[in-house]
Amino acid sequence: MKTSIIGTGLIGGSMALKLRKKGFTDYIYGIDKNEEHLQQALDRHIIDEAVSLEDGIRNADLIILAIPVDAARKLLPSILDQLQEHQTVMDSGSTKAGITNAVKDHPNRKRYVSFHPMWGTENSGPVSATDESFTGKAAVICNREESAEDAFHLVERAAQELDMHLIYMDAEDHDIHTAYISHISHITSYALANTVLEKEREEDTIFQLASSGFSSTVRLAKSHPEMWVPIFRQNRENVLDVLNEHITQLRKFKSALEKENYDFLEELIVNANKIRGILK
Amino acid sequence: MKTSIIGTGLIGGSMALKLRKKGFTDYIYGIDKNEEHLQQALDRHIIDEAVSLEDGIRNADLIILAIPVDAARKLLPSILDQLQEHQTVMDSGSTKAGITNAVKDHPNRKRYVSFHPMWGTENSGPVSATDESFTGKAAVICNREESAEDAFHLVERAAQELDMHLIYMDAEDHDIHTAYISHISHITSYALANTVLEKEREEDTIFQLASSGFSSTVRLAKSHPEMWVPIFRQNRENVLDVLNEHITQLRKFKSALEKENYDFLEELIVNANKIRGILK
Repeated sequence: MKTSIIGTGLIGGSMALKLRKKGFTDYIYGIDKNEEHLQQALDRHIIDEAVSLEDGIRNADLIILAIPVDAARKLLPSILDQLQEHQTVMDSGSTKAGITNAVKDHPNRKRYVSFHPMWGTENSGPVSATDESFTGKAAVICNREESAEDAFHLVERAAQELDMHLIYMDAEDHDIHTAYISHISHITSYALANTVLEKEREEDTIFQLASSGFSSTVRLAKSHPEMWVPIFRQNRENVLDVLNEHITQLRKFKSALEKENYDFLEELIVNANKIRGILK
Repeated sequence: MKTSIIGTGLIGGSMALKLRKKGFTDYIYGIDKNEEHLQQALDRHIIDEAVSLEDGIRNADLIILAIPVDAARKLLPSILDQLQEHQTVMDSGSTKAGITNAVKDHPNRKRYVSFHPMWGTENSGPVSATDESFTGKAAVICNREESAEDAFHLVERAAQELDMHLIYMDAEDHDIHTAYISHISHITSYALANTVLEKEREEDTIFQLASSGFSSTVRLAKSHPEMWVPIFRQNRENVLDVLNEHITQLRKFKSALEKENYDFLEELIVNANKIRGILK
């Protein structure tokens, strides 16, 4: 089977490496606006051949979109315009309502499978891709009833080859959930980095003192705006809801400290500790 | 050399294991109000003998306080009351101004070394202690000029045996810095956990979807109130300053999203990315 990867970075590159390793695909076309990434993807044998977008769409059985969510939403309709009945296109974006709505009424809608692998790091580019990036992680397929059976099964098989476990969900629900368990973490982490950078001018001190707790909380603040501005933009309303709730929760800590109400402070922490039972 | 560990949990236990392994100490007394912890510390050979506080203070060359910061501040003056000239006491708390001020004018002040190993996890108790917990981490000694030379050098040697690198700092400065690079991360993480727990009632969904990003941001929310309420209490003013700044930073993200000002959003993220150059 021939596969085209549109966007040969961390996500597309990691998928390509694993799908080739498992024998799911035997030839991979790479499409990328970034010439340096294309070359790196060739050098690492993530792709077999760098091709134009048109050739990549025409020649592949499976087309994987792994570009920022705004670009993916813009590109998907024109990919569907060009698809033959035997071809399938899947995406990998972190927001799902926008892209599924954009092709809702497209005559070839059934050839598209709305896919989101729940994994990422603060790093990017083909150099960061690995063939075990997705192992053991969750992947979401949204609005499965809108995809053709064969297209859906192909993507389901790809997810199995990636060693991911599948969850099925409505696209709108997906975007609410990811606002809570992924998007807000990034905003918190960015804001925390800005807080420290704002007040701590003695950078050496941060560097020397930063404990593992700080590093893990602020790790996501290294994530690039090229990926995250479009995500926040597409999931704006949900993210704003969660952000408002988060600020409300922070104000409770502020109030407990201001009023020196340490019983309330303890109550807030005991409640937060419940996350222990939910997250390993 | 004989050592007493007051508080045989994660921190005290980890120090004991490593200091024994390195041959820095050949007999360790354990003092703990928690009988279960004492037994676990005996079982894991973290301590040689469980003793009373009085015996622990009388018989050791080095006394290590590894209990919550409020208890440590309360206990230290009475330990100093009982110390002989050849004995040294060090603490390991995350706030330093309160405890150093509490003994500032004590006639035996010079036998105390104000110490803070910059490491911890969301876990606790002797079962979580390891002999490599502190390896490669930073440790802070505060107000070194207030300690006797021999006491200071003993603690410096202990830090070396723990494979930590030392930083010297004024206690007040220490508390400002730790508010930024440790205490605020915990509040953020607690508030994030409470945000998710507040709105996400479908706990299975959180559990299934939670990506590694979320897990690392919310990991600290598992930390216990017994340790953290006293830290926030003792460092209340600094923590409030940083918390106010953090809420201000979050409001900038909120404003950017509300006004759909994505240039500003990008600017905020680009600024946060600078943490990349500071934290590895």
